[in-house]
Amino acid sequence: MTNVAVPGGSQPEILELVKAAKRKYGSAVNFYIFDEAENIDQDNLWTYISCEKGTMIQKAVQSLTDGQTQILLKGIVQTHDMLKEVLKKEHALKSQSLLSHVSIIDIPKLGRPLLLTDAGMNIAPTKDQQIQIIENAVSVAEKMGLAKPKVALLSSAETYNPKMPSSILAQEVTEYFRNQEEFIVYGPLSLDLALSKEAVAHKKFTGPIEGDADILVVPSIDVGNVFYKSLLLFGNASTGGLIAGVKIPIVLTSRSDSVENKLYSLEFALEQLKE
Amino acid sequence: MTNVAVPGGSQPEILELVKAAKRKYGSAVNFYIFDEAENIDQDNLWTYISCEKGTMIQKAVQSLTDGQTQILLKGIVQTHDMLKEVLKKEHALKSQSLLSHVSIIDIPKLGRPLLLTDAGMNIAPTKDQQIQIIENAVSVAEKMGLAKPKVALLSSAETYNPKMPSSILAQEVTEYFRNQEEFIVYGPLSLDLALSKEAVAHKKFTGPIEGDADILVVPSIDVGNVFYKSLLLFGNASTGGLIAGVKIPIVLTSRSDSVENKLYSLEFALEQLKE
Repeated sequence: MTNVAVPGGSQPEILELVKAAKRKYGSAVNFYIFDEAENIDQDNLWTYISCEKGTMIQKAVQSLTDGQTQILLKGIVQTHDMLKEVLKKEHALKSQSLLSHVSIIDIPKLGRPLLLTDAGMNIAPTKDQQIQIIENAVSVAEKMGLAKPKVALLSSAETYNPKMPSSILAQEVTEYFRNQEEFIVYGPLSLDLALSKEAVAHKKFTGPIEGDADILVVPSIDVGNVFYKSLLLFGNASTGGLIAGVKIPIVLTSRSDSVENKLYSLEFALEQLKE
Repeated sequence: MTNVAVPGGSQPEILELVKAAKRKYGSAVNFYIFDEAENIDQDNLWTYISCEKGTMIQKAVQSLTDGQTQILLKGIVQTHDMLKEVLKKEHALKSQSLLSHVSIIDIPKLGRPLLLTDAGMNIAPTKDQQIQIIENAVSVAEKMGLAKPKVALLSSAETYNPKMPSSILAQEVTEYFRNQEEFIVYGPLSLDLALSKEAVAHKKFTGPIEGDADILVVPSIDVGNVFYKSLLLFGNASTGGLIAGVKIPIVLTSRSDSVENKLYSLEFALEQLKE
């Protein structure tokens, strides 16, 4: 049984998600709604915890620290405020030096789930940040059961170009992970060589990743954001996302996500709890 | 009748393109192949001009200057070498302060052609460069018959974020074009708000561009490159491209382009010659 803490969750769009989750998971997944607004749930679908003004985030995060809940899902609160509370030393929830966003993307035409990072949090990662972003994503992949994940560092081309910052960064990060045996990190790589066997064959490309990347690492948030939105708009993709680098999965959905994509994010978080 | 100059064009992949173009355009489009390699055309499909070593680019560009040809299409020569020749003062072919790459993308699901810039040439444009890139793309759009094109400056979100370089750049460029009446420039905008009426309705977004952008301007080459490759791989898109900022259309196709996409680039260039 998994309990999900939702600060600021007494909202129609969260209720819609909870209804969908209940249809899918039944009593295996329960929701704890921490809110200062009144309880809008008429059907007893969730556990409602009435909060005094300004305390709903703190109480929700405390429920994770106490072990009452296992996943944090953002309701109508500021992401910044929520993460600030999560990072407080007293909760001891932080596990890595940097938090990062990991998206999961299911593209029908690709036929396998793909992780993408960081398309939601770190704007223009430095080398050290990119290294931590990769380690966070690899942890997520491992919990999904992906053995020896292949991590592609995206750039505009597969050849090193000293004029292109993403190319320089990719080469430095590849060098850093050269002796890593648990996973493979390689770049610079173009999107087609990271994901398409046909493109690899056509370009006669050989390397440690040949169209079979499991994790795509983007040089900037803009690259990741435009990429996953293009897949949502034109690739019939489903996407979900969570924050990695903490001991508990944090789900950030946005108002514009469909219920299906919010549910996909929740499923992604639930997978992270498997032993 | 249009004549296309192709330096380094006596190559199987160019022959394949010429065959396809001849099937489509017949004698309306002719190819002038400038090469030091021997003529591989057995069927008299093109006009072959034998060049001494090191002169094929110069001779091809000279044919444009002389008015013998009207489009330059890159064969197996270095892009850098070809553009260097084009930019020589003696040819007087340069029309703007900056050359830039303009892609045309036809996404079946979108149902209208979309221009994208700069996904092929300028790596990380400054404000002044971005302004010129936009002016180049608007010229291209106007020659395609697009009246008062809408130019979206892509970022990760539609709200100004002082921590995000693409957001700052978009706001400055929007401000620069504020009184422009021939076309509309607006950003920062996320991809979904630039292209999807549904996303605009869902987010209750209002602005000068509401899902109806004609031209997408990316903050860096990586954003554009990953975007159009994702559309090729997963959006069943056709793409073409040309170099703008010169008096004649320059077509750069790459070895990995399909014949269809090379032909689409040629069609895009031919459209630029219409009066």
